[in-house]
Amino acid sequence: MADGDDDVPLILTWDDTSSGLLEEDENGAGNYDVVNNVVIPTPGAPDPRAQNSLRQSWEMNYQEAAIYLQEGENNDKFFTHPRNAHALSAYLFAHNHLFYVMELLTAVLLMLLSLSEAPAVPFLRLDVYVHATLELLALVMVAFELCMKLRWLGFHTFIRHKRTMVKTCVLFIQFIEAIVVLVRQTSHLRVTRALRPIFLVDCRYCGAVRRNLRQIFQSLPPFIDILLLLLFFMVIFAILGFCLFSANSADPYFSTLENSIVSLFVLLTTANFPDVMMPAYSKNRWSCIFFIVYLSIELYFIMNLLLAVVFDTFNGVEKMKFKSLLLHKRSAIEHAFQLLVSRQRPDGVCLKQFDGLMRFYRPRMTPQDRFLTFKALNHSGATMLSLQDFYKFYEVIGLKWKARRSGEHWFDDLPRTAFLIFKGINLLVKSKAFQYAMYLVVAINGIWILVETNMLNVGVSWTRVVPWSYIIFLTIYGIEVLLKITGLGPLTYFSSGWNLFDFSVTVFAFLGLIALAFDMEPFYFIVVLRPLQLLRLFKIKQRYRNVLDTMFELFPRMASLGLTLIIFYYSFAIVGMEFFADVVYPNCCNTSTVAQSYRQINVTIGNRTMLEEGYYYLNNFNNILSSFVTLFELTVVNNWYITMEGVTSQTTHWSRLYFMTFYIVTMVVMTIIVAFILDAFVFRMNYSRKNREPLDDPEDEKGIVFETEVSQTEALQTLDLYKHTLGVTNLSSLQDMCVALERSGHSSLVFLGRRSRTKCDLSMKMYEEEIQEWYEEYSRTNLQPDETFHRELDSPEASATNSVN
Amino acid sequence: MADGDDDVPLILTWDDTSSGLLEEDENGAGNYDVVNNVVIPTPGAPDPRAQNSLRQSWEMNYQEAAIYLQEGENNDKFFTHPRNAHALSAYLFAHNHLFYVMELLTAVLLMLLSLSEAPAVPFLRLDVYVHATLELLALVMVAFELCMKLRWLGFHTFIRHKRTMVKTCVLFIQFIEAIVVLVRQTSHLRVTRALRPIFLVDCRYCGAVRRNLRQIFQSLPPFIDILLLLLFFMVIFAILGFCLFSANSADPYFSTLENSIVSLFVLLTTANFPDVMMPAYSKNRWSCIFFIVYLSIELYFIMNLLLAVVFDTFNGVEKMKFKSLLLHKRSAIEHAFQLLVSRQRPDGVCLKQFDGLMRFYRPRMTPQDRFLTFKALNHSGATMLSLQDFYKFYEVIGLKWKARRSGEHWFDDLPRTAFLIFKGINLLVKSKAFQYAMYLVVAINGIWILVETNMLNVGVSWTRVVPWSYIIFLTIYGIEVLLKITGLGPLTYFSSGWNLFDFSVTVFAFLGLIALAFDMEPFYFIVVLRPLQLLRLFKIKQRYRNVLDTMFELFPRMASLGLTLIIFYYSFAIVGMEFFADVVYPNCCNTSTVAQSYRQINVTIGNRTMLEEGYYYLNNFNNILSSFVTLFELTVVNNWYITMEGVTSQTTHWSRLYFMTFYIVTMVVMTIIVAFILDAFVFRMNYSRKNREPLDDPEDEKGIVFETEVSQTEALQTLDLYKHTLGVTNLSSLQDMCVALERSGHSSLVFLGRRSRTKCDLSMKMYEEEIQEWYEEYSRTNLQPDETFHRELDSPEASATNSVN
Repeated sequence: MADGDDDVPLILTWDDTSSGLLEEDENGAGNYDVVNNVVIPTPGAPDPRAQNSLRQSWEMNYQEAAIYLQEGENNDKFFTHPRNAHALSAYLFAHNHLFYVMELLTAVLLMLLSLSEAPAVPFLRLDVYVHATLELLALVMVAFELCMKLRWLGFHTFIRHKRTMVKTCVLFIQFIEAIVVLVRQTSHLRVTRALRPIFLVDCRYCGAVRRNLRQIFQSLPPFIDILLLLLFFMVIFAILGFCLFSANSADPYFSTLENSIVSLFVLLTTANFPDVMMPAYSKNRWSCIFFIVYLSIELYFIMNLLLAVVFDTFNGVEKMKFKSLLLHKRSAIEHAFQLLVSRQRPDGVCLKQFDGLMRFYRPRMTPQDRFLTFKALNHSGATMLSLQDFYKFYEVIGLKWKARRSGEHWFDDLPRTAFLIFKGINLLVKSKAFQYAMYLVVAINGIWILVETNMLNVGVSWTRVVPWSYIIFLTIYGIEVLLKITGLGPLTYFSSGWNLFDFSVTVFAFLGLIALAFDMEPFYFIVVLRPLQLLRLFKIKQRYRNVLDTMFELFPRMASLGLTLIIFYYSFAIVGMEFFADVVYPNCCNTSTVAQSYRQINVTIGNRTMLEEGYYYLNNFNNILSSFVTLFELTVVNNWYITMEGVTSQTTHWSRLYFMTFYIVTMVVMTIIVAFILDAFVFRMNYSRKNREPLDDPEDEKGIVFETEVSQTEALQTLDLYKHTLGVTNLSSLQDMCVALERSGHSSLVFLGRRSRTKCDLSMKMYEEEIQEWYEEYSRTNLQPDETFHRELDSPEASATNSVN
Repeated sequence: MADGDDDVPLILTWDDTSSGLLEEDENGAGNYDVVNNVVIPTPGAPDPRAQNSLRQSWEMNYQEAAIYLQEGENNDKFFTHPRNAHALSAYLFAHNHLFYVMELLTAVLLMLLSLSEAPAVPFLRLDVYVHATLELLALVMVAFELCMKLRWLGFHTFIRHKRTMVKTCVLFIQFIEAIVVLVRQTSHLRVTRALRPIFLVDCRYCGAVRRNLRQIFQSLPPFIDILLLLLFFMVIFAILGFCLFSANSADPYFSTLENSIVSLFVLLTTANFPDVMMPAYSKNRWSCIFFIVYLSIELYFIMNLLLAVVFDTFNGVEKMKFKSLLLHKRSAIEHAFQLLVSRQRPDGVCLKQFDGLMRFYRPRMTPQDRFLTFKALNHSGATMLSLQDFYKFYEVIGLKWKARRSGEHWFDDLPRTAFLIFKGINLLVKSKAFQYAMYLVVAINGIWILVETNMLNVGVSWTRVVPWSYIIFLTIYGIEVLLKITGLGPLTYFSSGWNLFDFSVTVFAFLGLIALAFDMEPFYFIVVLRPLQLLRLFKIKQRYRNVLDTMFELFPRMASLGLTLIIFYYSFAIVGMEFFADVVYPNCCNTSTVAQSYRQINVTIGNRTMLEEGYYYLNNFNNILSSFVTLFELTVVNNWYITMEGVTSQTTHWSRLYFMTFYIVTMVVMTIIVAFILDAFVFRMNYSRKNREPLDDPEDEKGIVFETEVSQTEALQTLDLYKHTLGVTNLSSLQDMCVALERSGHSSLVFLGRRSRTKCDLSMKMYEEEIQEWYEEYSRTNLQPDETFHRELDSPEASATNSVN
């Protein structure tokens, strides 16, 4: 019998007798009395029933520990922790990827509905009853999800959880509206559709978006302060501008106080400069001083101040976020640890318990990896994990384990001749000369493309013939890729992002060539990808490698920021569509100041008649796709006032409010994005500087690496433990390990666990000293979270819970 | 005889016998032999000749020490230190404010000449011979300055000094050109005038501009790297855009590769968005993706990256600059200290020597202040300053000394009744209620102005009548100012910047009222200043006070950055004028794509004939003032391509190079400005956070304060010392101090030295720990600068120098 088989958990969880889950265990309650009186079955004569119940309570503990760790990872607050078996079943139902995907799909479906609703994209238009029924279905799904959540959280926690409450209210409104639409068979003014992104934001997979939104809201107060300063100066200058320039009848920009304010608001974005200045400037040259002073104060000073303030707040918020995440994880680890230790040995977790935990926490993990993870945690080399060891849980959990290869190259085991050939290729592709030769080829290719393109006449038949230079360069690239793959081995080759990039660009170019040869349509494809090869040139310089590496590290975060922006776009697009659909069209705004941009007339110049087109009628809110493009144009800011004035001239003055609000909102989001990029880069550069990281060879950047040595006896023992005690059937990975050990001839084998480096790892190193302080502070106030936990245990719902300590 | 009267300097300076300065001392050489053999005159029998020469050598030492300290303050390198008496006289000639002012005026005159030269501002046009003569005169002045510098530096150092050499070359070229102009009686293509700002930059008073330029150049390498990345993507997208859109004949933006590149360059600045997209977008809606991707990569990612990289470099450069300045000052202090200590007591500087130094270093300082400065330095309380004490020299030197007032209020000495009244007023104006009442009045005033302005019709006779509300509010403000002045006392009142602001705004408003009442022209004046009162509202919130205070702290630096920008403007304006003067005029560009903006025609719509004006012909390079306005418009970037295309259509394609270069240069400068503002604010906020500075009460912000206690005996002793030993005649300040001490009845009096806080003080606190490291590192490598110094002393020019140690 393996070590620790009769250990009794220190804490028993969810073992209230009313529990549906434990009802199979008929003798449950009685058994727990025994446990509570610390009657441990004697090793010689195991009571099968007691054994069974003991195993079950361990399983329960594993599960709860896994849930705690999951909560730590996802930053779920512990007050939403399931507290009884009912809650647990609902919790488990609502916490798996199938459910998450359903949640996400429902939310996306709801958002996509606006493609087919009233001002629909032409080729996606659906009948009212179709899209209203679809909507109702999606809403029912959301309602079902909410019910699950209610069941798991309990009524009180549900009410206390703000986000969920907002979601419930929005759901209710949407429900009613969807029914009204179905009944009336026509859409009414449904501005509330702008609230649909809430369902998306609440999805498990959109956690990053939620965090971004929180960060934006946290940066708001200082932002608003400076914004007020900005608007205040604007109003002062508007009054002044009105007084100075309203006498000039040729100046439409300052004719009334309202015009004056709008002109200066637009001037803040520089979109109407220098036009706004010109009438006054042409009358009196000194009037330019007014505009220069205004722009200097507003644009060059206060706007930058805005960035500075947001950047500063952002910095602080990032650090606090990291701190709270870190402490939350630590707390989760402590909770889990308490559940995993036994009464006999309350200071440590042994492999059996750890394995049990991992079966719940990472069901897909092989026994070998579970064992290696345990070894990686186990710094002290004892048979059990102390709490200190266990604190490293999250650092170790994502590692991918692989035995260290004895040989250096993939071709080491090949026969002598082959080895020498491959060794030669290996040396060749690793040589500086080869690298620089390739850079040269790429550079020549670049110049070639430029010259070739420049010599082409407009749109001639160059798409038909395959240029020979293209074939030559492609051949060179192809040979390079083959050489590299054979020289380095496919695994090493593809483990570098840059090689992957080279490879895919080359493969796509080949596909393009084939498409071209067979006269297929998508030749654009090639054109796009040919100059992309040039990007490889940027590998030459250290700074570019840094920049591009950082870019890739930032990519997930950037994507989530982009998604956040899209959510704002969505809401504004819905509002825009409800109010401004079909208001602009060619020649619509002939009475406004921007008539020119909407005009579409035939002009006769000399003897030629041509269509003079002001294309701005294309920037409309006629459907959600057009709205998105229009909103992007508003984000870029240039000439945004033309769209605004066009719409305003067709509706009312108050439309300007929409555009101005949108400008301010995007200003906030854009400022946050700028602050984020600034922060991330400065942080990364500081990090490189602080750790004097060489970063010289991009191939060496393997992220985080852990090493674990496994001896043969250890491996066999583990195999034995798994086979006999835990009753795990799928032991192939462990058996493989034993075989590998035997074959290698060494008494032990080193395994390497790798994962890519995350921002969290960087932060850990950057804030090293502060983290120690935080931990100390946390352990001083440690009682407080624990007490919260116990208070919750003692709360009415959890009164039946039987806590041992 | 006072203490230390016969001390012999440890180091003798400039005492080579060939020195013209020492020739009055006939017995000089003989006496030094005695000094070198350490024969000190016996106290009983002073040899008057030896005494005299000793005093003279002390004076020389004081002067050199003062020069060292001056060099430390101005960050002049020590290799330009005058090394013999000839050099000294030239040095003294070239280092006084009269000379500096002359230097500055000459440089400004040279720059202003462009107002009257060839494409002159109409009302400032001068004949060729007049401005050419003026220029020659100015250039002769510059040549004279350079001669003085040559005399002081010696030929070798002069050649080694890069900036001076560049200046000499430029001077030479300008000279020849000015003569050519005089001879030909007409201006030729004088692009070299763009180099004129070099004379301004080299002025002593423009040190800040020089530092800014250096900082810009230091930030350039990383900037250029990222810029290349930006341009690289631009070219890739240009090729792609050409391939995609050139088939569309309605799309002028991508018709050739050159057009394509130019369009995307302009799109980088967003100036032609969304127009550049419209022809393609109207043909195929999906083409917007090309533009969205391009803008996302270039504008939102790489441009921000640019800022991040510059910001990061800027941070590092700022710190390094601070470090090198600090160490340079320290080194200067050490040099000066060596010159001030005597052979008898080589560890300390006594008051006599310190006073001697200060007479050269700050000739205007009163003996009392010199004495108090000495006391402030003297932390240990000994009679002499140690080197450690002396290191604080620069912190103490700018202090303004004042005896601490015994009473709290200015009216403490008044009779009882008056005291009570004033006390009441004092309490009133200090009360929160009064403050908030005033805020309320200001707010009401603000709303009033807004409403009033809004209700006015366009340009009616409202300038004629004085609105009664104006008088009421002005009266309230007047009463407030009076109450505050009487309640706080004028000194306390005016020591706060905010009060000064209130006061001046109110006074100006009164002046405006008078102007209005007497129907004088400049009524704008009032209109400007009335809403300014509203700025007071921003005092309410802590953050605004911080922001505005920081703004004032930053002002000098901002001004120098502005000046730097103007210097760039000047050079570009000259080049622009030489090439593009008078090329654009109404209806000039009818064949270009921007014809609309230059058109000036009479249009008949219905039965009305009106002038349709495209005002862009006003953005020209016809004279330097117009050029500046045009360049400002280009800086603001919006619609800059209209100016570019207009000029290009009248000249050649290559003109675009000018505009693109200008855009990139302003981008650099603007990025630096943004980085500067970011850095300054983030630094300031970090500082506040780090030092948990309350910053709550702006009245408490008094900057740096030193306290020194002077006892009566000390004061009398000092008076005695000055009177008898130093032979200073103007002792009124010291006598006043003695009288004040006597009158106060206390045995001692505390003096407070105040100065405003500078960035340097903030940096000192921020980098506290690092500074210690730097100092240690510096003192480890201390031999090195010292050796440099000695090497210089041993260099041929300095071989005659007699160094004692």
